[in-house]
Amino acid sequence: MARRKKLYEGKAKILYEGTEPGTIVQYFKDDATAFNAEKKDVIDGKGVLNNRLSEFFMTGLTQLGIPNHFIKRLNMREQLVRAVEIVPLEIIVRNVAAGSMAKRLGLEEGTPLPRPIVEFSYKDDSLGDPLVPEEYIAAFGWASQQEMDEIVSMALRVNDYLSGVMYGVGIKLVDFKIEMGRVYEGDFPRLIVADEISPDSCRLWDMETGQKLDKDVFRRDLGNLADAYTEVARRLGVMPSNVTHTPTKPTLIN
Amino acid sequence: MARRKKLYEGKAKILYEGTEPGTIVQYFKDDATAFNAEKKDVIDGKGVLNNRLSEFFMTGLTQLGIPNHFIKRLNMREQLVRAVEIVPLEIIVRNVAAGSMAKRLGLEEGTPLPRPIVEFSYKDDSLGDPLVPEEYIAAFGWASQQEMDEIVSMALRVNDYLSGVMYGVGIKLVDFKIEMGRVYEGDFPRLIVADEISPDSCRLWDMETGQKLDKDVFRRDLGNLADAYTEVARRLGVMPSNVTHTPTKPTLIN
Repeated sequence: MARRKKLYEGKAKILYEGTEPGTIVQYFKDDATAFNAEKKDVIDGKGVLNNRLSEFFMTGLTQLGIPNHFIKRLNMREQLVRAVEIVPLEIIVRNVAAGSMAKRLGLEEGTPLPRPIVEFSYKDDSLGDPLVPEEYIAAFGWASQQEMDEIVSMALRVNDYLSGVMYGVGIKLVDFKIEMGRVYEGDFPRLIVADEISPDSCRLWDMETGQKLDKDVFRRDLGNLADAYTEVARRLGVMPSNVTHTPTKPTLIN
Repeated sequence: MARRKKLYEGKAKILYEGTEPGTIVQYFKDDATAFNAEKKDVIDGKGVLNNRLSEFFMTGLTQLGIPNHFIKRLNMREQLVRAVEIVPLEIIVRNVAAGSMAKRLGLEEGTPLPRPIVEFSYKDDSLGDPLVPEEYIAAFGWASQQEMDEIVSMALRVNDYLSGVMYGVGIKLVDFKIEMGRVYEGDFPRLIVADEISPDSCRLWDMETGQKLDKDVFRRDLGNLADAYTEVARRLGVMPSNVTHTPTKPTLIN
C-alpha cells in the first residue's frame, strides 16, 4: 500500500486522506497538551481510549438522528470520518461554571448555571482560541446566521443527550466543546458534528465525590489522566480491549 | 395526623393531597395492568422501583432545565410532586417501531424510524386512550397550538436526554410515554413534565441481547417484571435500599 497522505497534524490527532473520496482517517495520538500547548506530555493509551469513546458517543448521536462525521472505527487508534469544511469555531456548552467562564466571571467552580449556555471561541491557536461574541461570527463570515441557529440547536441537543449518558453512570457533564463542519450534498451545505467527543473535550465530575474524570486531571496535575479516562470508559462499558457491551462497573466485591 | 385526602386512584398510582398548597403525594402501587386493564397482576416491589426510577429520571431533567413536577421523594413508595392541571394527552416518542405503531403500520418490531416521532393519545380509559391526529387537539381544546409546539419540543428534549441515559448503560430507548401539566404562575400557565418516567412508561431493550426490560415483560408473559425493572435500576446505580450512587453493574467476578 502506498504511504497515505497526511493532511493535517494537530495537538491530539493526525488527519490522513481516507480510502474513499470524501473521507478522512482520524488518528488519535497519546499527546496531551494544555494552555495552548505550553504544557505537554505523552499519556500512554489516551489515544486508544479517545478513539473508542468518540466512536461510542458519535454512534449514540447517529442513533438519535444528530448528524456527525463518524463512519467506522478502523483500529485501536484510527477511525474513518467524513471530510468536512470545518467551521472555525469551538462550540462550548456549559451546565456548571468552570474553567475559563468561572475565571472570567469570578464565579466559584461548580456554580450551577441558570440554564445551559452556548458560547463560541474562534479556532486560532496563534490567538489562543479567543472567546468571541456571536455578532463577530456572521460579520466575519465564519458562519451564517442561519447556520448559527442550527449550530446552537444541535449543540443543545448534544448537551441533552450527553448529559443523559453521563447522568446514567453517575457523572455530571459540566461542559464540553464540539466542532461542526459542512458537507456538500446537492446545492446547499449541511452541518454535521465533527472532530471528537471525549474526556479531552468535556469536563466530567463524579456526581458523588466531585472527582474530575477529564483533561483537568492533566491541566491541574490531579493524578493519572489515563486512569481517569479508563474510569469513564469502564462505567460506559466501552473497553479498549473488548468490543462487547459487557457491564463493567466496579462492584464492592473484592 | 389526620387521614390525608385521596384525590385520585389510577391503575398504578394513588394521588393524595400534599402537605403544602399546590403539592400532591404520588403513591406508587405494585399493581400492573395492560391492555386497558384487561390483564392485571400485583408485582411485588414494582412501586418501590418506579418511585426510585422516576425520582432519578426527573432529577436529571431538572438538572438540564427541563421543568417537571418532581419535588422530593418522601419514602419507599411516595414522592411529593407539584399539583398540575393535566393535559389529557399521552405524549409518545418513538425511536424504533414497536407496540401499537408496529401493528398499525404492519412494521416488524425493531424497525428503526427515520427520525424520532412524537404522537398523541387522548387520555380516556373508557375509549382505550385512542391515538389522535394533532388536528383534534387544538380543535377540541385539549391544548393550544402554542402549547403543542412546546409539548413537542420538550418531548424531543426528553427523548435526547433519556436516550442518552439508557445508551450509557447499554439499553436502547425504543419509545416512551410522558404526560404534561399546567402550573399557574402569574398570568399564564406554564407546561411541566408530570406523571412518571419509569419502565412502566418506556420500552427498553438491552442493546446486546434485545432482552426486554420494560412492561412488555408483563404484557407478553416474558418473565419476572420486577427482575427486569431491578436490572434497569441496578445498571443506573439506583437501588431501592441504597441512596448512594455506588456503581452497581454486575461484573464477571463470581
